[in-house]
Amino acid sequence: MINEVIDEMYHKKEYAKLRDYLREMEPADVAELLTNAELEEDELIIMFRILPKELAADVFVEMEPDMQETLIKSFSDKELEEVMDQLYLDDTVDIIEEMPANVVRRILRHTDPELRRSINTVLHYPKDSAGSIMTIEYVDLRKDMTVLDAFTRIRRVGIDKETIYTCYVIQPDRKLIGMVSVKTLLLSNYEDKIEDIMETNVIYTTTLEDQEEVADMFTKYDFIALPVVDSEERLVGIITVDDVMDVIEQEATEDIEKMAAIVPSEHPYMKSSTLELYKKRIVWLLFLMISATFTGLIITNFEEALTAYMLAAYIPMLMDTGGNAGSQAVTTVIRALSLDEIEPADVLKVVWKEIRVATCIGLTLAPVCFLKVIVLDHRGMLTAVVVGLSIFFAVIFAKTFGCMLPLFGKKIGLDPAVMSSPLLTTIVDAVTLLIFFTIASNLLM
Amino acid sequence: MINEVIDEMYHKKEYAKLRDYLREMEPADVAELLTNAELEEDELIIMFRILPKELAADVFVEMEPDMQETLIKSFSDKELEEVMDQLYLDDTVDIIEEMPANVVRRILRHTDPELRRSINTVLHYPKDSAGSIMTIEYVDLRKDMTVLDAFTRIRRVGIDKETIYTCYVIQPDRKLIGMVSVKTLLLSNYEDKIEDIMETNVIYTTTLEDQEEVADMFTKYDFIALPVVDSEERLVGIITVDDVMDVIEQEATEDIEKMAAIVPSEHPYMKSSTLELYKKRIVWLLFLMISATFTGLIITNFEEALTAYMLAAYIPMLMDTGGNAGSQAVTTVIRALSLDEIEPADVLKVVWKEIRVATCIGLTLAPVCFLKVIVLDHRGMLTAVVVGLSIFFAVIFAKTFGCMLPLFGKKIGLDPAVMSSPLLTTIVDAVTLLIFFTIASNLLM
Repeated sequence: MINEVIDEMYHKKEYAKLRDYLREMEPADVAELLTNAELEEDELIIMFRILPKELAADVFVEMEPDMQETLIKSFSDKELEEVMDQLYLDDTVDIIEEMPANVVRRILRHTDPELRRSINTVLHYPKDSAGSIMTIEYVDLRKDMTVLDAFTRIRRVGIDKETIYTCYVIQPDRKLIGMVSVKTLLLSNYEDKIEDIMETNVIYTTTLEDQEEVADMFTKYDFIALPVVDSEERLVGIITVDDVMDVIEQEATEDIEKMAAIVPSEHPYMKSSTLELYKKRIVWLLFLMISATFTGLIITNFEEALTAYMLAAYIPMLMDTGGNAGSQAVTTVIRALSLDEIEPADVLKVVWKEIRVATCIGLTLAPVCFLKVIVLDHRGMLTAVVVGLSIFFAVIFAKTFGCMLPLFGKKIGLDPAVMSSPLLTTIVDAVTLLIFFTIASNLLM
Repeated sequence: MINEVIDEMYHKKEYAKLRDYLREMEPADVAELLTNAELEEDELIIMFRILPKELAADVFVEMEPDMQETLIKSFSDKELEEVMDQLYLDDTVDIIEEMPANVVRRILRHTDPELRRSINTVLHYPKDSAGSIMTIEYVDLRKDMTVLDAFTRIRRVGIDKETIYTCYVIQPDRKLIGMVSVKTLLLSNYEDKIEDIMETNVIYTTTLEDQEEVADMFTKYDFIALPVVDSEERLVGIITVDDVMDVIEQEATEDIEKMAAIVPSEHPYMKSSTLELYKKRIVWLLFLMISATFTGLIITNFEEALTAYMLAAYIPMLMDTGGNAGSQAVTTVIRALSLDEIEPADVLKVVWKEIRVATCIGLTLAPVCFLKVIVLDHRGMLTAVVVGLSIFFAVIFAKTFGCMLPLFGKKIGLDPAVMSSPLLTTIVDAVTLLIFFTIASNLLM
């Protein structure tokens, strides 16, 4: 519908009307519209030139990297400078990280030296560190200012700042000594001194802190911004809540991918090439396929018993149930670790909990299984006992082992999600079969 | 460390000193400290009374429900009123939802009638709706106010509001007609009219909207607050970004749990009883165990071939690889759906992508598998061909079927995560075995 309106104005060349129409929209919506319209390169460039000046940079930030690249290549040097001037530092850095080297060089050539230095600094912070997601556009105050001074400063510098609602109080050497919210400023008298109204217990993070820890601080303290200091406690930037929401989604996606034996990447699904998806997936599939050799060996060893007592039919059920029971425990513990609900030191509490849960589950599944073997499969009592007992012990093992795996991984400094899920399948499969064949050998032979 | 300091002050009864010490801490940290200290009920009550007045309510909000319940029961009516008075509506509602009925009655008895009406209204919005997470504490303005009027109003009512940074402009009938940020107010002249500086294109949500959609709007538009209107477009509340971060984490946890065949719940792991965990997990385990009967039947049908050609050893490897390949596709598509990267209409594009990826993966796994059978297992060429071909087709089927399942679920209005993961295992297991036995029958017999 909106597309049709725009389409008509565009083709009738009613550009002024179109510009007024777009002016009323949110930048994110305009960017989405341009993406979905699947425009030719030259159409995209025309559309971008039609955008009202004050909207253009905001729309640019919201676009996909390939469209940004097309546009940057079409910009005159002056246009490039104009757009870059209006971006916040963290957005500029995000864009630069996605562009090919020649485009990056051109961007850096057209930013002023001070900004270029800042870009380079942020670019050099490790991936996923607090420094790499921070912005340097914040409002700083001095402790001897009055509230009126503070408002004057906010009015003067505020328009370019990503957030003005929390202001940071620093010493002349840029050491962070306090913070004051605009709410506090508004509720104070003009002549009050900043040092009398500021909060001196500032919670902050450091440039090298992991972004996941930063996200945890935001959810814990309900901040809208968090100051970032360097190793000498000097204020170097702030992280704003909108960037943290992206971190939370990205970290959840990574956890989910690791649990499904996928190597995580940052590209959205539809933007990933076949080769990229192939590479993300083949590693673990290959590893898991080869490790299933063990399971095969166990079966080969018991082939005789399998044949004699027709036990092969129960292999899928036992392996699936063991695997599912284990992955429930692994998943629960990985998520609880991610959300900081538990830590490796809780291992005994967790194991005790899982053993109790597993016993209840085993006591439910085993009788059902027992009945199924007798009633549906018309097999003997002894076979039913073997299968029922096997499922009981398989569940106990899978859950106990499954809950320890991520805790152990975290303890020795490995990523709990990466090491747990793939290892789980292999080991639980093998142990389940060993349990099954051991019980079968003892009771049936 | 901190615990020791507090412990000492507490036991020496240096309560004034302890109060000053606690005053400097963040409410969330005090709550965490009280939780970890594992206090007796009477110690908890004493500690809570020691807290500085201005901190007490904020600490109370951050506590676990069981501690809140203990405290409420110990409160005098006057104390209860004091604490409740200082809470934001959305926090009050969260607390009420966790308390037993008699405590809820007592809370409601000690809130003033107007607040009680608001609580009841919010309590009646469906779970996970925008109405259920909104707060009614916001700043509203009229369009004929000046900027100075607006500041006066903010100073007067702002202290009790959850956020003052976005103010909403309403008509006398409470219809939402605009919004203005404190940043805009600060950068305008005192005599400017609100109607001249307000943003008239307000993005809003409605009380019945799903909270997941609300979270998507926050990540898309980078808001710190979003207005909520009723069916007549009257402003009834706002949702703030801190509550949305909780929604994002909660929805990710739910997706993760559903993929691991767990029925989601809102309780953190360590707070869930054995019975609760049992109930969350047994449903799908039972269903999956019983559905593995089909796989068993298929094996029984081919028992003869299995025995004659010693094929049983390959069952785990084929089933695991099929299952893993399928769950990679399912997981990727579910996450892409959650993040709004794809929609059911994209089914053809997605299937085409997965077929290409599956072909590459199949072409890698099949030769490796072929070699393994010959070199490691010392089996004949024909068996190697059977196993290699089976793994190739199993991967193609698992990925194609796996990517369609969540899209189909979404299309017919079911939760993609709930229906996909459990169904996948069952169907991929069965089809993988059918592929294996069909190829084996044709080539070996």
